[in-house]
Amino acid sequence: MSDNSYGKLFRVTTWGESHGPSIGCVVDGVPPKLALTEADLQIYLDQRKPGQNRFTTQRQEPDQVMIMSGVFEGLTTGTPISLIIENKDHRSKDYGDIKDKFRPGHADFTYTAKYGIRDYRGGGRSSARETAMRVAAGGIARKILGDEIKITGALVQIGDKKINPENWDDAEISKNPFWCPDAEMAAQWETYLDKIRKAGSSIGAVIEIRASGVAAGLGAPIYGKLDGDLAAAMMSINAVKGVEIGAGFSSAELTGEQNADEIRMQDGKPHFTSNHAGGILGGISSGQDIVVRFAVKPTSSILTLRQTIDTSGNETEILTKGRHDPCVGIRAVPIGEAMMACVLADHIMRHRAQCG
Amino acid sequence: MSDNSYGKLFRVTTWGESHGPSIGCVVDGVPPKLALTEADLQIYLDQRKPGQNRFTTQRQEPDQVMIMSGVFEGLTTGTPISLIIENKDHRSKDYGDIKDKFRPGHADFTYTAKYGIRDYRGGGRSSARETAMRVAAGGIARKILGDEIKITGALVQIGDKKINPENWDDAEISKNPFWCPDAEMAAQWETYLDKIRKAGSSIGAVIEIRASGVAAGLGAPIYGKLDGDLAAAMMSINAVKGVEIGAGFSSAELTGEQNADEIRMQDGKPHFTSNHAGGILGGISSGQDIVVRFAVKPTSSILTLRQTIDTSGNETEILTKGRHDPCVGIRAVPIGEAMMACVLADHIMRHRAQCG
Amino acid sequence: MSDNSYGKLFRVTTWGESHGPSIGCVVDGVPPKLALTEADLQIYLDQRKPGQNRFTTQRQEPDQVMIMSGVFEGLTTGTPISLIIENKDHRSKDYGDIKDKFRPGHADFTYTAKYGIRDYRGGGRSSARETAMRVAAGGIARKILGDEIKITGALVQIGDKKINPENWDDAEISKNPFWCPDAEMAAQWETYLDKIRKAGSSIGAVIEIRASGVAAGLGAPIYGKLDGDLAAAMMSINAVKGVEIGAGFSSAELTGEQNADEIRMQDGKPHFTSNHAGGILGGISSGQDIVVRFAVKPTSSILTLRQTIDTSGNETEILTKGRHDPCVGIRAVPIGEAMMACVLADHIMRHRAQCG
Amino acid sequence: MSDNSYGKLFRVTTWGESHGPSIGCVVDGVPPKLALTEADLQIYLDQRKPGQNRFTTQRQEPDQVMIMSGVFEGLTTGTPISLIIENKDHRSKDYGDIKDKFRPGHADFTYTAKYGIRDYRGGGRSSARETAMRVAAGGIARKILGDEIKITGALVQIGDKKINPENWDDAEISKNPFWCPDAEMAAQWETYLDKIRKAGSSIGAVIEIRASGVAAGLGAPIYGKLDGDLAAAMMSINAVKGVEIGAGFSSAELTGEQNADEIRMQDGKPHFTSNHAGGILGGISSGQDIVVRFAVKPTSSILTLRQTIDTSGNETEILTKGRHDPCVGIRAVPIGEAMMACVLADHIMRHRAQCG
Repeated sequence: MSDNSYGKLFRVTTWGESHGPSIGCVVDGVPPKLALTEADLQIYLDQRKPGQNRFTTQRQEPDQVMIMSGVFEGLTTGTPISLIIENKDHRSKDYGDIKDKFRPGHADFTYTAKYGIRDYRGGGRSSARETAMRVAAGGIARKILGDEIKITGALVQIGDKKINPENWDDAEISKNPFWCPDAEMAAQWETYLDKIRKAGSSIGAVIEIRASGVAAGLGAPIYGKLDGDLAAAMMSINAVKGVEIGAGFSSAELTGEQNADEIRMQDGKPHFTSNHAGGILGGISSGQDIVVRFAVKPTSSILTLRQTIDTSGNETEILTKGRHDPCVGIRAVPIGEAMMACVLADHIMRHRAQCG
Repeated sequence: MSDNSYGKLFRVTTWGESHGPSIGCVVDGVPPKLALTEADLQIYLDQRKPGQNRFTTQRQEPDQVMIMSGVFEGLTTGTPISLIIENKDHRSKDYGDIKDKFRPGHADFTYTAKYGIRDYRGGGRSSARETAMRVAAGGIARKILGDEIKITGALVQIGDKKINPENWDDAEISKNPFWCPDAEMAAQWETYLDKIRKAGSSIGAVIEIRASGVAAGLGAPIYGKLDGDLAAAMMSINAVKGVEIGAGFSSAELTGEQNADEIRMQDGKPHFTSNHAGGILGGISSGQDIVVRFAVKPTSSILTLRQTIDTSGNETEILTKGRHDPCVGIRAVPIGEAMMACVLADHIMRHRAQCG
Repeated sequence: MSDNSYGKLFRVTTWGESHGPSIGCVVDGVPPKLALTEADLQIYLDQRKPGQNRFTTQRQEPDQVMIMSGVFEGLTTGTPISLIIENKDHRSKDYGDIKDKFRPGHADFTYTAKYGIRDYRGGGRSSARETAMRVAAGGIARKILGDEIKITGALVQIGDKKINPENWDDAEISKNPFWCPDAEMAAQWETYLDKIRKAGSSIGAVIEIRASGVAAGLGAPIYGKLDGDLAAAMMSINAVKGVEIGAGFSSAELTGEQNADEIRMQDGKPHFTSNHAGGILGGISSGQDIVVRFAVKPTSSILTLRQTIDTSGNETEILTKGRHDPCVGIRAVPIGEAMMACVLADHIMRHRAQCG
Repeated sequence: MSDNSYGKLFRVTTWGESHGPSIGCVVDGVPPKLALTEADLQIYLDQRKPGQNRFTTQRQEPDQVMIMSGVFEGLTTGTPISLIIENKDHRSKDYGDIKDKFRPGHADFTYTAKYGIRDYRGGGRSSARETAMRVAAGGIARKILGDEIKITGALVQIGDKKINPENWDDAEISKNPFWCPDAEMAAQWETYLDKIRKAGSSIGAVIEIRASGVAAGLGAPIYGKLDGDLAAAMMSINAVKGVEIGAGFSSAELTGEQNADEIRMQDGKPHFTSNHAGGILGGISSGQDIVVRFAVKPTSSILTLRQTIDTSGNETEILTKGRHDPCVGIRAVPIGEAMMACVLADHIMRHRAQCG
């Protein structure tokens, strides 16, 4: 019942703090004889890596992953795969301010309330640095998904600036620093985010993750629903405040007639004429694209003084200098993709167990 | 790893189908020596009970709960509590149509894809009838929460008609058939929903659940986060398509300055000047109200013909007659409250285990 | 993390007390489309049923099992199967003595120490009555095992009287009231146990459970070992004090040369020339017979006064009248078989999940 | 559901192979603010360390443990504790023989049957090297147990040579290379084991682990029984073939009168006049010493040719040279102690969660 683990059969346990010697994870339950190298995982880690452009934190971390176990002569052996990444850029600096004061929007206050102690350096365990291990684990998960399943993540909203769905072009996503599928909006965001960055401010965002090629039948009622697991997985990402599937919150405004995804036959196979369900009915995949969206709040570390209290209960103010992202939503894209991969890998194995 | 169980220490396992002889659940892990009677649970079941007014299904179920174990001389014994409710109104009727055709928006297609078999009578296991057991289990959970914690659920949106938060009055909630905290909007909804009902149509909704009096420190990073567990719990309710915490999706449009809930001292205790976080930071409660909202799609059973296929893969149409809710969101209010109670009860015990 | 559940994918949760209205269990994770009727389970319940001869308790329980969910038109649907057995012979009697005194060897003292409350009627939750549900669940598990796997349980020792392994005859097992595979020893036991019964005394026993036809490869290192799970499963049966696999405790006296089960080829397949390992190496099945033995202590309820204390801490004596078994080991045979079936069913699904 | 994890609330996940770069574990659920240093764990690792005398393997491993996370300024933080030990003495050698042949008594055959691949170097994942992490985790568990609970492990039998319980002297245990509490028997074992060692043979053993100072009330019926968990924990140790509690297998030969541990009052507290139960009744601790015994088979690697087959299914022979223990039971003593510590720590937290 480790609170630092996720997945039931594809089981990932992460460990490590922002400023400890290293971070890591153990991935258990992986099928044997999958070809796996460190390079296979590095691809995804490089996508999430900080410091790649001016819109993400300037912390310099190569995020070089090492496979410590579970792989023999290039193949998984079915035993636990241990992954480790060394922390390189945990600068020795004066933590005086965040040591004694609770940063608004951060987990400083709640960790202290819970544990009576916290590793305040860079946020300790609550740092988004932990998500590197999710991305690495997601790389293993993709080996289980195989080539049939394709996962596509994109940033679809920054502040009140939303992409135009009609402009969506998968090929565009990797061409801008925002994972934006809409070239026009990417250009607008650049100007917009530069302004926010220079002001030492930050802004929220919405990410969309799609998985295509998922066979019908994945997921398990009632409390192992595919959408339930996706909701937990996405909500567990730092700074996420909302998750929706398919039409999501907008389905509140639909009538039954509008919402029902009708079914026809196409090329001898069932075909839905719309996808308000986001590919999931009754917690089980329908064969349509799985569509998940999640909202990320603005980075809590900003260059404006905020009111707070210190650990002794005195009122004070804090200004969080440091290396931060004007929009943490950007780096959440590869993380969301990884979580999608992990949830699907888990459910593929769960389905195989029960239904053969 | 039962997919029909939820909670880690406060552990609920449900069973039963819409048209089977009965439905039930087993609640394990309950602390000993709590006073518990069937009447304590019936209060909540009566809130969810179908057929109470013209806006909910006309299925007539007394939903009388029986405690079969785990309680001795009026006190819990620490052993599993088995609850059973008999299905009374599972009319013998002609299931011909739903037996052979997949109802759009329902889980018919996906259950068949997964299991190759389904109990088609009234939706079988995928029926919202299962949620009665959540409500019963929630009644037990509230015994663990004690009187300090107060849970308040309300319907805040039907279709595009949202309540005015400034009109929110807790006392109003039980005075209308919608759990609406805004008397003015309740009146509007009545007319609006009557129209939908008469048209044999349906509409979506948004529910808000608040828990006040929750101490700071509940929840567990990283994959046992309070918000992660709430997201999974709410998303597992039938027809839910989105979940958000605090500012939720609107936080995407906030700047860091707007979003940061500043902290002051009040009466010698930490006090947040706003609650965009919805009472949860880093997955741990802050002592503020926990605020969760979820979107419910419109009832899929409507009186308009929809295109579909049959189990043999032929194109056809279906019209789902029967006893259905024009807005299933209404009955989701006590269910959402129950899930909140269960998640909090679980985390209270998890916190006590680790932090004493 | 229900403490009243076992199995990971084939997941059984039991509930109920000796003198409550009924006992039951929920079996989750069962593959769909298995033919299953109540009669399939009743066969095994009838084997365990009390009151069948003078060597087992005279409590009269028909132990008629009812399937409440999860089966539709004679086939499992993949959803949870709820089983219920009504308690018929929970006589209204004077519990005065066991209400206030702790019976030595029973769980009265420890339940009170743990929970501060106990259902003292007939032992409450700690009664062996719970094992009826294991037997019923085992019947479902056997459906997963199929016809290839054959489970044979037998009583191999009562007191210091052990069977002669050379006399072992499977056909003999059901011909005597002891599940004894050695006709000669069965005759001796009859005389021996009659003496014990008439003296109001009791005696311990050893049970052996074998599973043949189990393919090589079941089980999962390191903490999901097949023998680890079997040990936990058998030790969880009431009154069990020891579990061993293959040569078990006698392997302490073997040399490496004696203990090594050598391997040859036979009919083109690997063949072990001995089975000290009991069919399990490194926690994984080898294809040989799985052999488990467990020791059951003598029934604690006897007709001789024993010294004890009462719930107020006063020294006193107790004599446990009632309907008890002179050798509870006898009725443990079908229970041990059921636990073997459940563990194997679980591991078959676990293996399929990971290794396809 | 990681098969490489144990414990429910005190949760240990181990990883690594005999000849990989390192081995490690993640310990999750540890209460915050416990003083913890690497030296605290090294004490126990040094007890298990190979190569300390001629009766254990000559592999030279310093087994220096490193704490990678979860401890800040000398105190646990409540977040996962990652421990790593580098493998130093994984000599580059010719693995030709064990690469292609299955060693009798080892897990070579079954790992291959399960996974279709195995890391054959030194046994890979099935090597007893994994147990170093159990010992390290046990060191953390002892911090939770506190000073009240004392765990004492000892070797009580090698081959057919059993200690005389009347000679038991705790102080003697650390004075000989066998963890033998009987000085006289220790002397005999020295001669006996030297003979076995020189013959390139091996022999089995029995270990006893006692825990005193355990309060009444730990453990959880029905499938979370303290003895059930201890049985699984001990059986999961490499080469263990049997586990018993208290009188164990000998209880089969006892009458109810002999077996019942009577209760008196002593110094105002309940006092049992005997301990056949091994401190556990109905799966819950009674306040008496917890007494567990387990049997360890002889080391499978011996210097005598054994018949086997190769991976292609040809009959052949194998002689396992290498650095092995004449009696692996010796090194199992600190491992058994560690498992006892881990199970108790887990149950202390589980009890606190439910019963406060």
